[in-house]
Amino acid sequence: MSAIKPTETAASPRTAGSAANSMWGGRFAGGADRVMEAINASIDIDRRFYRQDIRASQAHAAMLVAQGIVSAEDGAAIHRGLDQVLAEIEEGRFTFSRALEDIHMNVEARLKEIVGEPAGRLHTARSRNDQVATDFRLWVRDALDGLDERLRDLQAALIGRAEQEAGTLMPGYTHLQAAQPVTFGHHLLAYVEMLGRDRGRLADCRERLNESPLGAAALAGTSFPIDREATARALGFDRPMANSIDAVSDRDFALEFLSALSILAVHLSRFAEELVLWCSEGFRFVGLSDAFTTGSSIMPQKRNPDAAELVRGKAGRVIGDLNALLIVMKGLPLTYGKDMQEDKEPVFDAVDTLDLCIAATAGMVRDLAVDRERMRKALSAGFITATDLADWLVRELGLPFREAHHVTGSLVAKAEAAGCDLAALPLAELRSVEPRIHEGVLSVLTPEQAVASRVSLGGTAPERVREAAAAARERWL
Amino acid sequence: MSAIKPTETAASPRTAGSAANSMWGGRFAGGADRVMEAINASIDIDRRFYRQDIRASQAHAAMLVAQGIVSAEDGAAIHRGLDQVLAEIEEGRFTFSRALEDIHMNVEARLKEIVGEPAGRLHTARSRNDQVATDFRLWVRDALDGLDERLRDLQAALIGRAEQEAGTLMPGYTHLQAAQPVTFGHHLLAYVEMLGRDRGRLADCRERLNESPLGAAALAGTSFPIDREATARALGFDRPMANSIDAVSDRDFALEFLSALSILAVHLSRFAEELVLWCSEGFRFVGLSDAFTTGSSIMPQKRNPDAAELVRGKAGRVIGDLNALLIVMKGLPLTYGKDMQEDKEPVFDAVDTLDLCIAATAGMVRDLAVDRERMRKALSAGFITATDLADWLVRELGLPFREAHHVTGSLVAKAEAAGCDLAALPLAELRSVEPRIHEGVLSVLTPEQAVASRVSLGGTAPERVREAAAAARERWL
Amino acid sequence: MSAIKPTETAASPRTAGSAANSMWGGRFAGGADRVMEAINASIDIDRRFYRQDIRASQAHAAMLVAQGIVSAEDGAAIHRGLDQVLAEIEEGRFTFSRALEDIHMNVEARLKEIVGEPAGRLHTARSRNDQVATDFRLWVRDALDGLDERLRDLQAALIGRAEQEAGTLMPGYTHLQAAQPVTFGHHLLAYVEMLGRDRGRLADCRERLNESPLGAAALAGTSFPIDREATARALGFDRPMANSIDAVSDRDFALEFLSALSILAVHLSRFAEELVLWCSEGFRFVGLSDAFTTGSSIMPQKRNPDAAELVRGKAGRVIGDLNALLIVMKGLPLTYGKDMQEDKEPVFDAVDTLDLCIAATAGMVRDLAVDRERMRKALSAGFITATDLADWLVRELGLPFREAHHVTGSLVAKAEAAGCDLAALPLAELRSVEPRIHEGVLSVLTPEQAVASRVSLGGTAPERVREAAAAARERWL
Amino acid sequence: MSAIKPTETAASPRTAGSAANSMWGGRFAGGADRVMEAINASIDIDRRFYRQDIRASQAHAAMLVAQGIVSAEDGAAIHRGLDQVLAEIEEGRFTFSRALEDIHMNVEARLKEIVGEPAGRLHTARSRNDQVATDFRLWVRDALDGLDERLRDLQAALIGRAEQEAGTLMPGYTHLQAAQPVTFGHHLLAYVEMLGRDRGRLADCRERLNESPLGAAALAGTSFPIDREATARALGFDRPMANSIDAVSDRDFALEFLSALSILAVHLSRFAEELVLWCSEGFRFVGLSDAFTTGSSIMPQKRNPDAAELVRGKAGRVIGDLNALLIVMKGLPLTYGKDMQEDKEPVFDAVDTLDLCIAATAGMVRDLAVDRERMRKALSAGFITATDLADWLVRELGLPFREAHHVTGSLVAKAEAAGCDLAALPLAELRSVEPRIHEGVLSVLTPEQAVASRVSLGGTAPERVREAAAAARERWL
Repeated sequence: MSAIKPTETAASPRTAGSAANSMWGGRFAGGADRVMEAINASIDIDRRFYRQDIRASQAHAAMLVAQGIVSAEDGAAIHRGLDQVLAEIEEGRFTFSRALEDIHMNVEARLKEIVGEPAGRLHTARSRNDQVATDFRLWVRDALDGLDERLRDLQAALIGRAEQEAGTLMPGYTHLQAAQPVTFGHHLLAYVEMLGRDRGRLADCRERLNESPLGAAALAGTSFPIDREATARALGFDRPMANSIDAVSDRDFALEFLSALSILAVHLSRFAEELVLWCSEGFRFVGLSDAFTTGSSIMPQKRNPDAAELVRGKAGRVIGDLNALLIVMKGLPLTYGKDMQEDKEPVFDAVDTLDLCIAATAGMVRDLAVDRERMRKALSAGFITATDLADWLVRELGLPFREAHHVTGSLVAKAEAAGCDLAALPLAELRSVEPRIHEGVLSVLTPEQAVASRVSLGGTAPERVREAAAAARERWL
Repeated sequence: MSAIKPTETAASPRTAGSAANSMWGGRFAGGADRVMEAINASIDIDRRFYRQDIRASQAHAAMLVAQGIVSAEDGAAIHRGLDQVLAEIEEGRFTFSRALEDIHMNVEARLKEIVGEPAGRLHTARSRNDQVATDFRLWVRDALDGLDERLRDLQAALIGRAEQEAGTLMPGYTHLQAAQPVTFGHHLLAYVEMLGRDRGRLADCRERLNESPLGAAALAGTSFPIDREATARALGFDRPMANSIDAVSDRDFALEFLSALSILAVHLSRFAEELVLWCSEGFRFVGLSDAFTTGSSIMPQKRNPDAAELVRGKAGRVIGDLNALLIVMKGLPLTYGKDMQEDKEPVFDAVDTLDLCIAATAGMVRDLAVDRERMRKALSAGFITATDLADWLVRELGLPFREAHHVTGSLVAKAEAAGCDLAALPLAELRSVEPRIHEGVLSVLTPEQAVASRVSLGGTAPERVREAAAAARERWL
Repeated sequence: MSAIKPTETAASPRTAGSAANSMWGGRFAGGADRVMEAINASIDIDRRFYRQDIRASQAHAAMLVAQGIVSAEDGAAIHRGLDQVLAEIEEGRFTFSRALEDIHMNVEARLKEIVGEPAGRLHTARSRNDQVATDFRLWVRDALDGLDERLRDLQAALIGRAEQEAGTLMPGYTHLQAAQPVTFGHHLLAYVEMLGRDRGRLADCRERLNESPLGAAALAGTSFPIDREATARALGFDRPMANSIDAVSDRDFALEFLSALSILAVHLSRFAEELVLWCSEGFRFVGLSDAFTTGSSIMPQKRNPDAAELVRGKAGRVIGDLNALLIVMKGLPLTYGKDMQEDKEPVFDAVDTLDLCIAATAGMVRDLAVDRERMRKALSAGFITATDLADWLVRELGLPFREAHHVTGSLVAKAEAAGCDLAALPLAELRSVEPRIHEGVLSVLTPEQAVASRVSLGGTAPERVREAAAAARERWL
Repeated sequence: MSAIKPTETAASPRTAGSAANSMWGGRFAGGADRVMEAINASIDIDRRFYRQDIRASQAHAAMLVAQGIVSAEDGAAIHRGLDQVLAEIEEGRFTFSRALEDIHMNVEARLKEIVGEPAGRLHTARSRNDQVATDFRLWVRDALDGLDERLRDLQAALIGRAEQEAGTLMPGYTHLQAAQPVTFGHHLLAYVEMLGRDRGRLADCRERLNESPLGAAALAGTSFPIDREATARALGFDRPMANSIDAVSDRDFALEFLSALSILAVHLSRFAEELVLWCSEGFRFVGLSDAFTTGSSIMPQKRNPDAAELVRGKAGRVIGDLNALLIVMKGLPLTYGKDMQEDKEPVFDAVDTLDLCIAATAGMVRDLAVDRERMRKALSAGFITATDLADWLVRELGLPFREAHHVTGSLVAKAEAAGCDLAALPLAELRSVEPRIHEGVLSVLTPEQAVASRVSLGGTAPERVREAAAAARERWL
């Protein structure tokens, strides 16, 4: 958006009011007030629609010509004029005006300066109600495509890492307590799965929103012989929306989009939390690069995981955006209400936020320095192969699992009391609890053995992780 | 849930603690405290999973037998025992215990009483982590199917009404100001579209969640030679989940479900708001039946649209549920954390709430008394055919739309000053603003003519509404 | 903020990174990346603190001089230099730099250019952690004062109107059904009460936050012999905060502020909803001025209550802001985490939003055209004095209220069947239900009589309303 | 609430409807439907008001007698009858009926069975609208008092611990990176401050809500000569509310209460997060007692901090409750709407949740096993006294802070490269960066020295912590 010049705020709001009124017709005696201009104008926000607005106007004009509603000459003038407006905006030569309220009025007013009378024919058989609904859907569709690309890139970074770390052992945690050894690659692939579902949600949202509101006009359709199939096609929509009132009244596509983004933000926040933990002294499993950390203004030795913390915190912001729009729409009678002008900012904010968060996360994954030694060392604590012992009792001695679990608990208590690891307990100690235990048990008590044994589908054994990474590469990249 | 007996609260929490501990093994020296029991036990909540839990256990046991991990005899005992537990619960003969924490422990403890030792073999190669994830997905899947059926019924009610009212004129509103005449049937079909997308969201959610976490065990998979495809198939899942850590860690299916329900609740709240408005003295477009209204304890003449107001208000509750779970999950490191025990209540609450709200809305639609006369009368206010006049100026006189809009504005000002309708302005008055206006204009100035002219695809003309109702019937019912 | 020049985005992020690093010390080998700059820099946001930041730095420097930690000459140079920085910012001559991250670094870097070495002494015995906490509290305190002034003005507008309309009858609604006649002045005073409690909440928030974090340094306090009482006093704080960790870690003052603003926004949204209703054709109780309404791009006759709808909708935005910050702070370990950089935007957004919403509401109240005739006419519908009849039966005939209520219900049914008002039912009809009814009853059946009779404390009788308006004027203005 | 019997669900809703209708008067032809009963009845929820409802009715009846509106005999019968109803409910002998909708109707219907006709006089000069507003305020007031007591107890636990650990060193963290040494007692007192502000918010809320709505009647006040001051006094309210419409319409007291509870929940969640971290292997600063941890169904060695995780997660639930009610109230026109029936559940849920969370937190604090050795050991990592070195350079050598910071950064880099601590760098190395450094620097490089030096007000030096604990004990307990 850097090419767009700042909005010109009318020096005299009364005059500005008159300017605006001249487009609404001659009926308003008074003028809009400065407060009203500030609360009412959306141009600071909706000018981000400029490409979509111009594109949709060109499609509409072409259809009006094809249907004989507007002459070919006027249509050509409109098309050319809109091209010029687009160029002016993209080159930063366009002056947006708050007095003209929104992107639609700003574009049309400039078009009139450029092409004169034909500009006044462009708004035939449409309304700002279907126009803004069209612009918004087109914009969200573009945003969906952009985010999907970013997510693919993040998945690529994760899969690449997972392949490198398919055999790297680390503690798997439940309740932030070491539970069982896993491989770091396996852990990273869990996020590839989550992000895959996020992409699925975005794709479903894209498909559902890809219908054209254009031609719904103010709310009731129009008496002009328009061709809604043609404009839908021209704008890449799958079909026209089936009901004109629905077309201008609902914003569920934006709500669904924000929902999908909120869930995605939650996923990213979980990974960010793990990065913050893994960088802290108690873990030191990974190091983040200088590019994604900062120093302290007072403590020179600090290397703070700022980017990860921001990704974690910004989930709150995105959920706030979703919440805001749900509340705006709740209980609103049909069709369009001005409350709905509040629909765009939360969406823009959530997209901008996630665009950054995904990029930052991918950058952190690519730059990550993995400390395999620290990870391996962390496995020595906490009797992490206790489950393997219990499973061995079931498998080899035929104990019911619950009994095996009980036996293992007693052995862990013994090891805890002795201040040693399970593998270091003398066989006699083991047998004092369950006499049938034999040396075979030693084959399951190291983390390496434990991880290698978990070959069930989706399990953490290195061979499974490599297969899973290959499958993910195939599916998502 | 009426068949389920209230949870037995252990009289002595210390004793209760011990009972619970006897299932965890022998390591806990102390006992759980009353506060801990109250905050930790989930049985008051998760016992709603009893059917899913038992079904999943039976599938798991059958697989253990098929894979030779458990003997056929033990498998049969487990199966039979679980059938008995199910019967006891459904007949209200089961006593749930808080000391046993959750539905899994309650079922297993009772199973042990019934079948003895084989009960202890059931938990082989699984964990409560994959068990609860499985139960929850099965429960949500059932809920999705139930809600889809309810929504279909509500669409049927709306479509039936729309067919009856395809030719009924009413004002279409923007900003709660009469904008253009529409048909009541057209307005109702807008909600059929919204609900159709809601059903689409639920269907997408169902498809995405329909993968089996069973066999992920605690988090890492298992060393037992299990067959996850078999249990997935037996439980109607499309496939096993691909990553064991993801399987026990994520709850995005619940978040997606709550998101879809929140959007649905917003849709229902908008219709409810309209019912409240339409019942108020200023409108009186419809009357709600006695079944969905109540009286006042002090004002005998009142007939209050309570059900509609409750449907409107309860959207807040459902959005609160979504919010709660998003916050719980935000920033949670993998894999399972006890915070996630808070995942079920918001989902149960949202399902129960919407189940009622959809049913109440369908009931109100079916019982609605439509006052066609009041609706028609409301069209006389507000120069509601002004757009039609503007369109006529474009179509017949070739004025650019913006100029036609300006002319119409002046004529409305004249009519307003004269205190009459547009159609009642003398031709001379009309011509004083635009001399080319002729009698032909009279053909567009009644609401009936206006509505009949809006034949564009998705428009409000009665013929279009009838076609749309037929298409909706075909698509959704 | 119009005087502030746009932030300069460093052309080369690597160079920019180095610039920033030169302030953090010489330890970072790499450089911040463009993504990191975009996600990490807060200067686009926190430059709104420039006044507070400079003021707090001057207070801190003066204290350092008074305590002999910095020389008087250096102190004077710092003070003068900061005055110059302030002037440059206010005159729009200051170039903010993203590479310098935040307002603190931007101000200090410029100070160094102006005064040289002494600038480096300013950060003695403080940290950005206590600095930002101080700036933020000062900013919120200023915002609280500004909003309180705005609310006082809105109360003044409402009280003025209430005095004018103390005797104006309108229907009082429950469930949007006419319930009992009230006066419009009484209704408006209800909002004066709500806003009074809002002001009370803001005042409590102000008092609670008015403690100084300055001197907490990074988190632990400092070994320099600082005088926290002195800086607290100089900045208008009531006292220093008692615990340095708390001082830099908590943001509950911002959460409390956003909570108070959310409740205020809900109050405003309720009044806005009433304005939208009262302007709609079904009511037409009031007309909004042209200044707060707009026209339609296609329907020339419309006068849309845009400002009221925006005030209603923007409540969603403010609640979203509150939600966002609650989520950011939830589960954050002490002390400062970078997540907390997300604390300012929701607060700024909520303040800006409510500043506009309160002003717009006050403007609408002042411009309101009240249609007393329409209000009075609306009282004829719905047997609005039924309660008065019931009360009469209790008072005059000694019926228990429940029986009186039942009798009144039967009489309303009779009147409804006869298509007439209660007052128009012949005495014989009345007596057919309750034989003791006599002509005296007629004295309570008009809305005027009903309103005049409600003289209980806080009731709607015009005399009570005038007293209440006078009391409100005394208390709030 | 265990003494309350389950609600009786009417077997035949049609009959039930009639029963309810018999209280509303004779006008409803039809009957409420099962769906309506389920959505409309609030008795399952609002029966928690039984004490408040009966108390308020007794105060109302006494006033009616005192004002001569009801006879002394009837008043006495009502009083006695209500005593009996109260006893029946508390002894579990009362059968609640959904057909009677709510607590008010349930109590009044039973009263009628007990005392006959006088029961019908109780509802004179009031309405369910002011009645429920009164009950709700009384209930919240009781809840506020209960929570304040719980918070005082939690503060007592924290202060006690802080006194014991006033001299215990641990790392103070920013960004979860060790920043500076602090004392554990100091850290705990930060929470005492936060909770103190929470108590302040609850106290402010209590004061603001403590006004009596009773006598507002349906919305407009009443024509009966009631004495609102008397009922306010009898119920412990400070005064009657000043505006009858406000009294029945607003629920800002509940919103303010939920806001205060949400902030409190966020505070608790932060401490809970710290407990979870401190219990994890990477920290092991503390051990939670068996009473507040549980084992794993599959991993016998685990000791999971369930209670802490639940306290952390449940913040989401409380924020969801706040959100729900804000949304319900947003945009609701005055006066009472049935949406407002949704006001009680979020409040009950938040109170129950926090009651448990505070108790669990206090229990954990009291049971905490602090591992001072692990805490002290954690201080050896990360050059934690770097700030002290920088401060020494400023204080002793007169370097500007920024330059001192830079020098320290270089020294940290040297130590990092040498793999040793700052204190272990040879003096020659120190001087190679800043030649004026002398042995005196050694006196600031140990954590003990660093902590002892931070004697600024609110700082972490043990003596300051002991003073602060004493002051907190004085202020809060």
